[in-house]
Amino acid sequence: MAGNSFGQLFRITTFGESHGEAIGVIIDGCPPRLAVDEAFIQGELDKRKPGQSRITTQRQESDEFRILSGVFEGRSTGTPIMLLIPNADQRSKDYDHNKDSFRPSHADYTYQAKYGIRDHRGGGRSSARETAARVAAGAVAKLLLKQQGIEVFAHVSGVGSLEAPETDVTNIDTATAIREQNLVRCADPEMAATMTTYIDEVRKAGDTVGGRISCLVRNCPPGLGDPVFDKLHADLGKAMLSINAVHGFEYGSGFKGSEMNGSDHNDLFVPSPGENGVKTQTNYSGGIQGGISNGMDITFKVAFKPVATIMQSQPTIDKSGNDTEIKGKGRHDPCVVPRAVAIVEAMAALVIADHFLRNKTLSL
Amino acid sequence: MAGNSFGQLFRITTFGESHGEAIGVIIDGCPPRLAVDEAFIQGELDKRKPGQSRITTQRQESDEFRILSGVFEGRSTGTPIMLLIPNADQRSKDYDHNKDSFRPSHADYTYQAKYGIRDHRGGGRSSARETAARVAAGAVAKLLLKQQGIEVFAHVSGVGSLEAPETDVTNIDTATAIREQNLVRCADPEMAATMTTYIDEVRKAGDTVGGRISCLVRNCPPGLGDPVFDKLHADLGKAMLSINAVHGFEYGSGFKGSEMNGSDHNDLFVPSPGENGVKTQTNYSGGIQGGISNGMDITFKVAFKPVATIMQSQPTIDKSGNDTEIKGKGRHDPCVVPRAVAIVEAMAALVIADHFLRNKTLSL
Amino acid sequence: MAGNSFGQLFRITTFGESHGEAIGVIIDGCPPRLAVDEAFIQGELDKRKPGQSRITTQRQESDEFRILSGVFEGRSTGTPIMLLIPNADQRSKDYDHNKDSFRPSHADYTYQAKYGIRDHRGGGRSSARETAARVAAGAVAKLLLKQQGIEVFAHVSGVGSLEAPETDVTNIDTATAIREQNLVRCADPEMAATMTTYIDEVRKAGDTVGGRISCLVRNCPPGLGDPVFDKLHADLGKAMLSINAVHGFEYGSGFKGSEMNGSDHNDLFVPSPGENGVKTQTNYSGGIQGGISNGMDITFKVAFKPVATIMQSQPTIDKSGNDTEIKGKGRHDPCVVPRAVAIVEAMAALVIADHFLRNKTLSL
Amino acid sequence: MAGNSFGQLFRITTFGESHGEAIGVIIDGCPPRLAVDEAFIQGELDKRKPGQSRITTQRQESDEFRILSGVFEGRSTGTPIMLLIPNADQRSKDYDHNKDSFRPSHADYTYQAKYGIRDHRGGGRSSARETAARVAAGAVAKLLLKQQGIEVFAHVSGVGSLEAPETDVTNIDTATAIREQNLVRCADPEMAATMTTYIDEVRKAGDTVGGRISCLVRNCPPGLGDPVFDKLHADLGKAMLSINAVHGFEYGSGFKGSEMNGSDHNDLFVPSPGENGVKTQTNYSGGIQGGISNGMDITFKVAFKPVATIMQSQPTIDKSGNDTEIKGKGRHDPCVVPRAVAIVEAMAALVIADHFLRNKTLSL
Repeated sequence: MAGNSFGQLFRITTFGESHGEAIGVIIDGCPPRLAVDEAFIQGELDKRKPGQSRITTQRQESDEFRILSGVFEGRSTGTPIMLLIPNADQRSKDYDHNKDSFRPSHADYTYQAKYGIRDHRGGGRSSARETAARVAAGAVAKLLLKQQGIEVFAHVSGVGSLEAPETDVTNIDTATAIREQNLVRCADPEMAATMTTYIDEVRKAGDTVGGRISCLVRNCPPGLGDPVFDKLHADLGKAMLSINAVHGFEYGSGFKGSEMNGSDHNDLFVPSPGENGVKTQTNYSGGIQGGISNGMDITFKVAFKPVATIMQSQPTIDKSGNDTEIKGKGRHDPCVVPRAVAIVEAMAALVIADHFLRNKTLSL
Repeated sequence: MAGNSFGQLFRITTFGESHGEAIGVIIDGCPPRLAVDEAFIQGELDKRKPGQSRITTQRQESDEFRILSGVFEGRSTGTPIMLLIPNADQRSKDYDHNKDSFRPSHADYTYQAKYGIRDHRGGGRSSARETAARVAAGAVAKLLLKQQGIEVFAHVSGVGSLEAPETDVTNIDTATAIREQNLVRCADPEMAATMTTYIDEVRKAGDTVGGRISCLVRNCPPGLGDPVFDKLHADLGKAMLSINAVHGFEYGSGFKGSEMNGSDHNDLFVPSPGENGVKTQTNYSGGIQGGISNGMDITFKVAFKPVATIMQSQPTIDKSGNDTEIKGKGRHDPCVVPRAVAIVEAMAALVIADHFLRNKTLSL
Repeated sequence: MAGNSFGQLFRITTFGESHGEAIGVIIDGCPPRLAVDEAFIQGELDKRKPGQSRITTQRQESDEFRILSGVFEGRSTGTPIMLLIPNADQRSKDYDHNKDSFRPSHADYTYQAKYGIRDHRGGGRSSARETAARVAAGAVAKLLLKQQGIEVFAHVSGVGSLEAPETDVTNIDTATAIREQNLVRCADPEMAATMTTYIDEVRKAGDTVGGRISCLVRNCPPGLGDPVFDKLHADLGKAMLSINAVHGFEYGSGFKGSEMNGSDHNDLFVPSPGENGVKTQTNYSGGIQGGISNGMDITFKVAFKPVATIMQSQPTIDKSGNDTEIKGKGRHDPCVVPRAVAIVEAMAALVIADHFLRNKTLSL
Repeated sequence: MAGNSFGQLFRITTFGESHGEAIGVIIDGCPPRLAVDEAFIQGELDKRKPGQSRITTQRQESDEFRILSGVFEGRSTGTPIMLLIPNADQRSKDYDHNKDSFRPSHADYTYQAKYGIRDHRGGGRSSARETAARVAAGAVAKLLLKQQGIEVFAHVSGVGSLEAPETDVTNIDTATAIREQNLVRCADPEMAATMTTYIDEVRKAGDTVGGRISCLVRNCPPGLGDPVFDKLHADLGKAMLSINAVHGFEYGSGFKGSEMNGSDHNDLFVPSPGENGVKTQTNYSGGIQGGISNGMDITFKVAFKPVATIMQSQPTIDKSGNDTEIKGKGRHDPCVVPRAVAIVEAMAALVIADHFLRNKTLSL
């Protein structure tokens, strides 16, 4: 209950600090006989890893992982899968400045207040480095979903006040080809170029900027989600809100939908020759009704605040409560969303995989 | 794991269908020797109950509750507290129309798809009637928080495209006096009148409209929240998203914060003579940093879609996948947010109480 | 986490005190479309209810139950099933003697020490009356198991130093016909008569005596149980040890097996034409190997201490720590095992049903 | 829920196979600022490690561990503690014989039946090697308990039909000095010599023998344990039954207590000048009443079956269900109890630490 586990039947527990020996994750509940494609997992980690381009942090981490248990001759055995990611490029001295002072809008103060002790180096446990473990575990969840024909796709739909055009979600090219051709990971190439230029400017000014990621789950069968508390969108929401820097979550029509009338917002059912025999004309429900998937595309959006570490001097206080100044050191992202696409997909895959297994228990 | 429990140490499990004999809740983990004020609990239920005014559903439920266990001579005993709320004013025949057809944007289809059976009367388990049990349990959580000096306050900040002015959160009168003087439960009396008029129009047109609720938690001590997954705002988000009709959640600066630069967004620490010795100049963090409360006001906003049942005829399909028509029957709210204020407060209180107890386990 | 829930996927939460308005249970996770046979459930409750015969307590409880939710037109809907059992024949004044004093070997002292408050009437929450809720929930689990062809059978195999002959478990008549023909619920009619006479003597002397119950699960498929902690026998052990008055649990060869050599104890596999294709020559493993069922009969034994309430005066202390005397009042069993047979079967059914559902999640 | 986690607030998750790269454990919930004494942890592992003496397996494992996270400058930080134990002396070829055949009374068959795949080398996940991770985590729990003055002590009280004299539990020398002076880890030196001789004979005959371990928890405060399901002895029972080869558990008077009368069995309260103000004249309750500790010594006993691997040829079947022969290879213990003393203590410490933290949540 101490907060480092997520999921019920496809359950992960992560560990590790930014500047410790390693981070990692145990997956408990992966079904047996799944082919565990290590190259695929590495590919997912590479999308999140630092040092990818000029608009991400320059910390160099190879983020190579090792499987220590749970896989035998390339297949899962049903026992815990342990994925270890050693830390490589720590520069702990970069963090002497926050040993006794609290960086603004970071977790330095709250960790100190809660635990009375903290590993300050690189933010310790509060560092987004922990999310590499999530991406590794999420990659295994994705392999499970792929086997079932379920696809998870996210892209950067907003940076600062820039917003990608509202492409019809059913027409987005989720082959990731377009998205991966630009540094910012936006599915709209034109907007991607604008965003990249903007992030570059922000970076040069020693500042940072927030952004938004939109996510789509395709071919999810009806029936996933467990009312009344473990509604599918409630678990997706918790998953996203648990990612560093996330300040908002909406699914389907979201906040804009709360401005609409029911007569416009209702998704009318129409017969469909496809597998489930039914679809809806519109999809304001975001593929989820009453907390349960209805077979339509699942859609949601996640808001990330600007990175707190800026290359400018700011007033703050030290441990004793005295005034002091602090300036960002270390290597940091000017905008977190390009790398966070992999994290959003990973957490979505973990939620869908978990509820996929939970739903199976009822098929007596 | 079947989804009807919430919380870890202050844990609730709800049961009941809209037109069954009763609904109710078991609270497991309420600390012993808490004075259980039944009049207070009834008062909370009254804020959520149907039939309060012309802008809410006309279903008449007294929503009187009985405590069946866990309280002895007015105080909690540390054993499970069972709160029973008998159903009174069911008119099940009002629901023959959705026995074999699926109401648009309701849970009729997904429950049928998931379970292969459903109690269609009044929406069965998917009815928002279930939230009465949450309000009852939340009232007990509020009693616990009051004892600790922690206050939870919500109000309607938006209806359709109407938006209450951005009152400085630290100046909102949370005595509930103003809010309770208007039908819509908005803390701004002028906007409340505008909203009421608008909802009335929508109702007369046989339509419905969505809205937004803003919530504030005051005097929450630093240290609540359990990274990396059970961050305080992640659990608040899940709690809110589990409420019927909720489509979005944001805390602190929320979606707007994702458009900002770090140099503007950072909350600078300043010495404070108060209990915690520190506060922040601004509060874009919404009282939570790194998933842990920092002692500032906790602030978040919740978006509700328009009620799906409208008094207009709509095309849909029946169980066999054939085209048919359906028109809203039964008694329904034109806008859910005035009654949902009590639900938002209840769920917030449950999350804060749970993390308050979780935090205490570490104080060795 | 407060201890009143049991099971993961077939999960129960019980509530209620001995002299409160009612006791009951919520089942969360019962698969949908199960025919819920109310007469069967009542029959199970009748086997546990007080006042059955001269060798049980004379408290009269009809133990009639009502289903408040989760069942529609006779079938489970997949939503929480709430079973309510009103209390009827309380005589709370019988318990004034333990309001301020601690009955020896009861839970009066420890509840007071833990919670600082207790409902002393009839032992409050610590009363074995709570087990009626388990029997009701266990009856639903049995209906699920019956549908799968799995059978649970328990009987009294020991009273004091009397021990039923070691009948070959595969030959026990589990039709319950023989067991139910004698007051003590022993499958051996001759020994049953001896036991009944002995309990009668003990009762007349104002004393009590302990006993043992043996249990058998037939037709359990291989594969149930989740190493390394949720081994099938570990969950059965916890289930049994959670029953009032239980002081010991063993499965298969049990304590006697710990005196044997490996060459004698090993269960040799032999081909079997039956469903699983394999059986073992002996069954010292009690149907479980490595924590997972192997398809053989599951066998275990449970030891109950003598009832603590005796009709004799005993020295004790009061709340202030002063010497005093206490004598059993109220209506109590001279020996608990005849009525506990229903409880053992119920808890076994709950464990097997839970692991049956857990095992299904892996069948991708 | 897949079975590889144990505990609620002091929660462990183990991973690893016998012949994989490493085994290990994550502790989630260890309170912050605990001094983590690595030498003490190593000392505990050394008591369990193979190759200690002629009466244990000759597999050589140094069982050296590394702490990968959760400890900063020698103290716990409140974040997950990861303990890694690399595997060293695997001889996987020793296990070709059970690749396609099922060893009698091992988990080969049930793992194959449940998962459809298994790592056969050294028994894979079903190997008792996994318990090294438990001992490491239990050592951290012991450090927490030591800080609170709570002591856990176990010793071998039975081997085959040999039984250590019923020493008055309050007089056992728990300084471990005596126990550690003999190979068998019995607190009675004379019986220890007899047991050692007997195990030696069994070993030379290529056979194995079962045994029993008695455990004592001293200075446990009243109030630990959470009725009605998470009774302290129920959680202890589950913990012990989850250890490889355990077939029985009893606490306090145990199975023998079930032969007694209530008038003899009741533990009479007497005033005590000590901290809790009360004690009992006898301790048939084993320090636990109604599932809650009463401040007296907690006592229980655990029965281990004989090790299944014997150095004799035995008939069995192969994967295709055909008759074959199998003979023990690899390096195995003739009797498991001398090394299992450390495991029993570790699991007991984990249960007590967990309930110690759970109890603290109520001290409002």
